[in-house]
Amino acid sequence: MQIAIVLYDRFTALDAVGPYEVLSRLDGAEVVFAAERPGLVRTDTGMLAVTADIALAEVPRPDIVLVPGGPGSEAQLADGPLGEWLRAADGTSTWTTSVCTGSLILAAAGLLAGRRATSHWLALERLESFGAHPVGERVVADGKYLTAAGVSAGIDMALDLSARIGGATRAQAIQLMIEYDPQPPFSAGSPRTAPADLVAAARRASRHSAWAG
Amino acid sequence: MQIAIVLYDRFTALDAVGPYEVLSRLDGAEVVFAAERPGLVRTDTGMLAVTADIALAEVPRPDIVLVPGGPGSEAQLADGPLGEWLRAADGTSTWTTSVCTGSLILAAAGLLAGRRATSHWLALERLESFGAHPVGERVVADGKYLTAAGVSAGIDMALDLSARIGGATRAQAIQLMIEYDPQPPFSAGSPRTAPADLVAAARRASRHSAWAG
Repeated sequence: MQIAIVLYDRFTALDAVGPYEVLSRLDGAEVVFAAERPGLVRTDTGMLAVTADIALAEVPRPDIVLVPGGPGSEAQLADGPLGEWLRAADGTSTWTTSVCTGSLILAAAGLLAGRRATSHWLALERLESFGAHPVGERVVADGKYLTAAGVSAGIDMALDLSARIGGATRAQAIQLMIEYDPQPPFSAGSPRTAPADLVAAARRASRHSAWAG
Repeated sequence: MQIAIVLYDRFTALDAVGPYEVLSRLDGAEVVFAAERPGLVRTDTGMLAVTADIALAEVPRPDIVLVPGGPGSEAQLADGPLGEWLRAADGTSTWTTSVCTGSLILAAAGLLAGRRATSHWLALERLESFGAHPVGERVVADGKYLTAAGVSAGIDMALDLSARIGGATRAQAIQLMIEYDPQPPFSAGSPRTAPADLVAAARRASRHSAWAG
């Protein structure tokens, strides 16, 4: 079972590494980190470089496609090599998935037309402009398309996907090994629970950045 | 504020990337990924390579030290270059932290003697052999030493640390941006909540692997 995680300049690291940590523990999983060109790919902060071990062209038929988000997603919305690869890979994939604004990339490639999908809360409504139906949930499944909300939501999505692939017991075993028993010190992880002034400030800042841009 | 995340062969990716994603968003944060020798470092699965941009020797006085865990931690318990670096860096650090079996590395370096600490649930009791007091909590603070339980617990630890450094509001803003509103599909993330047969199977398997040693 080949799982292709797509990398591009200025992706958000946890979007990719959260699901990797879960999905790589499935029986028979082969996770490949792939980019238009193999080599180092810098994350959005510039402080971390991850290796794309293989070119997208060398992974034409992955069983699972996973597209992370991040500020760099903006540059991937215009049609180009990634969009072309996604459409071709989606033609034979069992699951096509995204985390955060990775869903905008899937949608811009035409893969979410008429489908329910989620994204980072600051980018959610933008799915509409690509013909998808935004749903403000943490993980949204529509057929073989699984999309996750912002950044950390990829872990939940990957556990959901692990259960669909390997069964609930296998997913629970993975959850136990990565000790995913979350205990955030605050209840501020969603615009529904965070202090209203923080939500408003984030919305203001996002208008001036490419983040939800 | 310099944050040194230590890499070594066969570390667990999420142990490092979870806290990175949080701490890199603190004001003035400079996260550096450092290893004995700069260059590519493969994670425990072999499926992902992360770059150590700098040698440990070039980061002698970080404000924050973070040591991830993983199967490769076993090879770091014998005294050597990492242990020497940790003792020196700890002499001037503001916070010395770990995720998962990273606490065994801190303890083996002599930094947790007489201190309360946590680790991956499968490795927790091993802290005693290095003179630390094992505490089965998700995040344990003892003075400037913050240790996190297994793998995903580094996210919670980093939010806790963010609040200590930048205040609760800043930590909440970070939590909101990474949309850390966890909704795991199962309650299996801890030996207290997972099905008993899964816990027993993991304990049996750990006896035959380097994971929990």
